Amino acid sequence: MAERVKFPIRIALLGCGTVGGGVIRLMEDNAAYLASRVGAELCIRHVLVRDAERDRVPECRREWLTTDPEVVLGDPEIDLVVEVIGGADPARSYLERAIDAGKGVVTANKLLLAQHGPELVRRAGRAGVDLAFEASVGGGVPVIRTLREALTSDWVRSVHAILNGTCNYVLTRMRDDGVSFDDAVKEAQRLGYAEADPSLDVDGHDAAQKLVVLSMLAFGADVPVSGVKVEGIGQVDQLDFRFAARFGYTIKHLAIGHDHGERIELRVHPAMIPRGSVLANIDGVLNATLIQGRALGPCLLVGRGAGDMPTAVSVVADIVDVARSRMEGEPGLSTRGIQLNQRPLLPHDEVQARYYLRFDVADEPGVLGHISTALGAHGVSIEQMMQEGRAEEVGSAVPVLIITHGATEGRVTAAMQAVAGHGFMKAPPRLIRIEDV
Amino acid sequence: MAERVKFPIRIALLGCGTVGGGVIRLMEDNAAYLASRVGAELCIRHVLVRDAERDRVPECRREWLTTDPEVVLGDPEIDLVVEVIGGADPARSYLERAIDAGKGVVTANKLLLAQHGPELVRRAGRAGVDLAFEASVGGGVPVIRTLREALTSDWVRSVHAILNGTCNYVLTRMRDDGVSFDDAVKEAQRLGYAEADPSLDVDGHDAAQKLVVLSMLAFGADVPVSGVKVEGIGQVDQLDFRFAARFGYTIKHLAIGHDHGERIELRVHPAMIPRGSVLANIDGVLNATLIQGRALGPCLLVGRGAGDMPTAVSVVADIVDVARSRMEGEPGLSTRGIQLNQRPLLPHDEVQARYYLRFDVADEPGVLGHISTALGAHGVSIEQMMQEGRAEEVGSAVPVLIITHGATEGRVTAAMQAVAGHGFMKAPPRLIRIEDV
Repeated sequence: MAERVKFPIRIALLGCGTVGGGVIRLMEDNAAYLASRVGAELCIRHVLVRDAERDRVPECRREWLTTDPEVVLGDPEIDLVVEVIGGADPARSYLERAIDAGKGVVTANKLLLAQHGPELVRRAGRAGVDLAFEASVGGGVPVIRTLREALTSDWVRSVHAILNGTCNYVLTRMRDDGVSFDDAVKEAQRLGYAEADPSLDVDGHDAAQKLVVLSMLAFGADVPVSGVKVEGIGQVDQLDFRFAARFGYTIKHLAIGHDHGERIELRVHPAMIPRGSVLANIDGVLNATLIQGRALGPCLLVGRGAGDMPTAVSVVADIVDVARSRMEGEPGLSTRGIQLNQRPLLPHDEVQARYYLRFDVADEPGVLGHISTALGAHGVSIEQMMQEGRAEEVGSAVPVLIITHGATEGRVTAAMQAVAGHGFMKAPPRLIRIEDV
Repeated sequence: MAERVKFPIRIALLGCGTVGGGVIRLMEDNAAYLASRVGAELCIRHVLVRDAERDRVPECRREWLTTDPEVVLGDPEIDLVVEVIGGADPARSYLERAIDAGKGVVTANKLLLAQHGPELVRRAGRAGVDLAFEASVGGGVPVIRTLREALTSDWVRSVHAILNGTCNYVLTRMRDDGVSFDDAVKEAQRLGYAEADPSLDVDGHDAAQKLVVLSMLAFGADVPVSGVKVEGIGQVDQLDFRFAARFGYTIKHLAIGHDHGERIELRVHPAMIPRGSVLANIDGVLNATLIQGRALGPCLLVGRGAGDMPTAVSVVADIVDVARSRMEGEPGLSTRGIQLNQRPLLPHDEVQARYYLRFDVADEPGVLGHISTALGAHGVSIEQMMQEGRAEEVGSAVPVLIITHGATEGRVTAAMQAVAGHGFMKAPPRLIRIEDV
């Protein structure tokens, strides 16, 4: 158990990019109010940066800046370390050292948490310190807080979330304005939503990391991010949007978690959801997390999933929480309250869903019969089937669209493989899962 | 300052209806986990009821039950009082007595908070105890927590909320299934969503009470509930839904708050919102609160606004918070953090909006000219005007629908009054505000 700290609460900030600058700004602008909330003054003592000469927000005082990690991590007077560097290393070793030294820790680092979250949570638990990470998922929206605090007495059945703002922006532009995938990605980069290399976003890996962080709190799950089934949005095209609308759906990139008792199911992929769904209008760069609790029922949290100021709001809220907990006789309770277990993942073949299937085929008699026979042979039954138009010239492809009834993914992919070998197939068959959320 | 309590945390429950029963059930089912979160066991000692012989949830032990308030409120060993009786009295006097005796207090009582919230908050602040009331608004959704904790460092510009499940259910059934207002209200009663007397719901007063509670936290506002402009949903009919859809809108009953600097604006009424709004798909008994923070940007929280178990989840989350705060050297911080000021309300005539206006008129030449001239004379400009169909028989009414550009409500109502006196008017003119939310 850490000793009761003396006033004030002394804070070291690791990193001073745009989020770090926002944190300093919010802390300085609201100093008196924050002090009244915590019951002690919050004083920034160090800000670790790579370049002490670069311009910072005006609220950042020169005397705080240092490029020497030793100055920051070796200072025994620091109560609370706030990490906004990002990336795996050296963030990880800095945080481990801070935890081992009995300091409260706040981080916004989803990558680190997805890779080493359970380890860091246990380490903080053993050291009797708090590890807070609201800003790692959902920007300024209190998703972590809601799962951690308000659901103290509940059991989370499932999570359906839009966790990547770039994917959501791209899909929204494609659907609403007919923009192509490539153009929409370029736009997102120009507007500062996507990284210079947007593949982490559009391939779904960013969302998978955040899903693993949410799963720690929603399901108490210690699972490797490599266990999550991940698909990006690169395969979705205008034709899929048109047929989604025709069938009453819209397409969103979803991160999905289900608690099946012992096993849990984690997957990230484009999904068709009903146009009347609460998630259907979550457009542009907004993120959303829909939690289904046994007692709570549905609970949806929506906001800007990224952006410096929303993220800074969450970091400061965490600083207040951890600082308040330092004022108690026994800090670290909220972190020790996170009870993690290694949970087996449901094999993806056993995932149960409905499916939108697309077969781009030659416009020949008997093709529909072949496809429906193959599906039937694998126990997949068809709810709706549609072939729109005729081939414009001999040999060109026409799309056959199918909505299935519920089936396991193993059966559906086996049926698709059986069809894929036929000469009438003009492109590999494709699938978008339907989530009635 | 209250003294540091001894283990365990001893709890008295005032009331044991469906919410109270849910609280007992959740506390007993999750006892070990709750204890680990708080750092001390949570023990129910008393449950105050009107009839000790009535059947309760099986988790409620007979020896807890008493009908004597003195047994409960006079027990110096109680640390925490949880009020789930509802209504103004005796809930108010019980809570005041508990606060004055230095006990932590949790309440789900929106009526009491709307009428005496600022007074109770100040009283708790003086006594150095916590007053928590997450369950008073939004059922299990952490609206209060989000406003109070996560927005510690932010400034809330506005709140747009769907706060009454009965209104939302009725409007959803009217829109989606063509059910009449009266039938939809009867349905809501039959399904247990509406009270036996549903007027508090459908007239908007329940939503107004909740808006006043939200305003305390969003705007630090100490305002009387009588200052809120309130309209119910009784005037909305199928024709309005049809034209809303035609213009690209849907109709929701909204509670709206704006911070204008010194003055604040509070109103509760049906509103047309764009069909693509994040609030447009919040249907049935779901509630939603959309917060706009300066740093945070938009933040939407959605869930079941009522219901015993969602509300019980919030009560238990509050119990954990207040109990944890009792474990600190200095409880009452989160309540003292609520800084309330008497805020002047913006006169409703000065509210700025766009409007859908409906004039049921005789089908005569010159009527559109009269109406548009009257609007122009009052400085209200027209964005769209529509007269659908012709009168089916001589003397019957046809609706003229108008969408205005932005105007103050004073101008719009003056123009409507000028038109109302004409012989061609077959019914009083009506208005639904348009919120581009």
